[in-house]
Amino acid sequence: MRDFSGDHRWLAVNGITVDRQGDLLAIVEACARLGIAAICPWRHQVAAVGLARAVRAIENADLALSGYCRAGMMVADADHRQEARDDNRRALDEAVALKAPCLVIVPGGLPQYSRPGSLPSKDLAAARAMVEEEVGALLEHARAAAMPLALEPLHPMLAADRGCVNSLGQALDICDRLDRGRTGALGVVVDVYHCWWDPALESQIDRAGAARLLAFHVSDWLVPTNHLLNDRGMMGDGVIDIPAIRGWMERAGYAGHAEVEIFSENWWRHPMEDVLRVSMERHRSAV
Amino acid sequence: MRDFSGDHRWLAVNGITVDRQGDLLAIVEACARLGIAAICPWRHQVAAVGLARAVRAIENADLALSGYCRAGMMVADADHRQEARDDNRRALDEAVALKAPCLVIVPGGLPQYSRPGSLPSKDLAAARAMVEEEVGALLEHARAAAMPLALEPLHPMLAADRGCVNSLGQALDICDRLDRGRTGALGVVVDVYHCWWDPALESQIDRAGAARLLAFHVSDWLVPTNHLLNDRGMMGDGVIDIPAIRGWMERAGYAGHAEVEIFSENWWRHPMEDVLRVSMERHRSAV
Repeated sequence: MRDFSGDHRWLAVNGITVDRQGDLLAIVEACARLGIAAICPWRHQVAAVGLARAVRAIENADLALSGYCRAGMMVADADHRQEARDDNRRALDEAVALKAPCLVIVPGGLPQYSRPGSLPSKDLAAARAMVEEEVGALLEHARAAAMPLALEPLHPMLAADRGCVNSLGQALDICDRLDRGRTGALGVVVDVYHCWWDPALESQIDRAGAARLLAFHVSDWLVPTNHLLNDRGMMGDGVIDIPAIRGWMERAGYAGHAEVEIFSENWWRHPMEDVLRVSMERHRSAV
Repeated sequence: MRDFSGDHRWLAVNGITVDRQGDLLAIVEACARLGIAAICPWRHQVAAVGLARAVRAIENADLALSGYCRAGMMVADADHRQEARDDNRRALDEAVALKAPCLVIVPGGLPQYSRPGSLPSKDLAAARAMVEEEVGALLEHARAAAMPLALEPLHPMLAADRGCVNSLGQALDICDRLDRGRTGALGVVVDVYHCWWDPALESQIDRAGAARLLAFHVSDWLVPTNHLLNDRGMMGDGVIDIPAIRGWMERAGYAGHAEVEIFSENWWRHPMEDVLRVSMERHRSAV
């Protein structure tokens, strides 16, 4: 297992972690100044400054990307399905322009939450079938663009509104059906926050192997957790044994970044530089 | 599948649903008056009125029990393990005195939350191993007392603090190892709130079969959910396809009650009789 205690060359910062503190240009500037080598921007952050400026700023700062967040929200009724497809094609084009190593897919939950305006449904099995179909459709374009898709299983508490793929095993089943040859075109994000509770996590990471392990997101689970979306903890402040999970990832062949992705009303109140400095410290001591 | 639309003979009310509105004697009186045939009291509710009075009140009202809540919180450090065992033996004795059909086991999460004062740990696998060991230890006494134990898998969002058994499959693996003969001494609670998201739920209910399916709890998942513990919805107000899950239960041989268990700051503010009447209506229309 790589030693993270002496430097932070494998640290990446997901843009959402400091989303309220500044725009993408400010995030790029701060990361470059602090010697953070990689970021994962979000679409709304890119849109706010314009794609061309985002590309230039990242290039000029000599930053790597650890991914691009995000396509997805693929569950929709018939009237909203094409809109979802078009939206995801645009996300793919942006990922290519940004030279992201992968495009993260947050699959979406039931149609009324995934694509608002869609007819309400309680059929989670149908939502899951639609995710698989739509990932398959996007994958054709992604292969042509040489842009890997990274399907992200989400915590079961987000099954209704954000993502109906809720375990790594379920995500890998989809990958295996759509990309039998393990070509590198389709894989997964392992986010410790979403997956830490899963008794099968270690064995499913083994199963995934290097070909499928496209990204590794870190944060921590706080007790108590006061909000289902926006109360994630800084690494080391919660109960997740993050080094153990990183150990499983590396044993399976993962050699990429540990990307700090913290949705937190608490951390969004701190100055950007403080959050980045704490992330760097914790990357060394708690990841 | 049984038709619930015409009457409420298979309705049971879990005591927590009206926990803030009155004591156990008031709950018993209200249920008897409204023609609700079964309840599942909690230990703190029994303790508040005294075991002997609770037994008499339930007998006098001619109420059945659908279970007794709860033993568990079995994960502890060495200094707190015997305390947990003694506590769970007392729960077993109370269940026998109350003539409950089963004793519900909420397994507990990490030791510092399960048995406060225990040394902190992040080792979820160790917690799970301890749950299995302790269920096995309690099972010896439960067999002697002819009191079935009903292990309850809890939603993964409660893995750290309430229960580290997080899917029906995981619970059934424990049952199969501890009670190979499917003797009826050990089974599970299927609570739609905890399990609805699980892609394997239907197949695991099939696997469980009548011998393992000891209780069925109903409520609903709200979007948004504003609190991890106390924001469950009334059946019909959320996104869970409850009739579909009841159908799987009955196909597997379950023929017991549908027990309304709603932890909700919202419903705790309504008068007891209103909550019971809405539960009766929704039992007919949404379960």
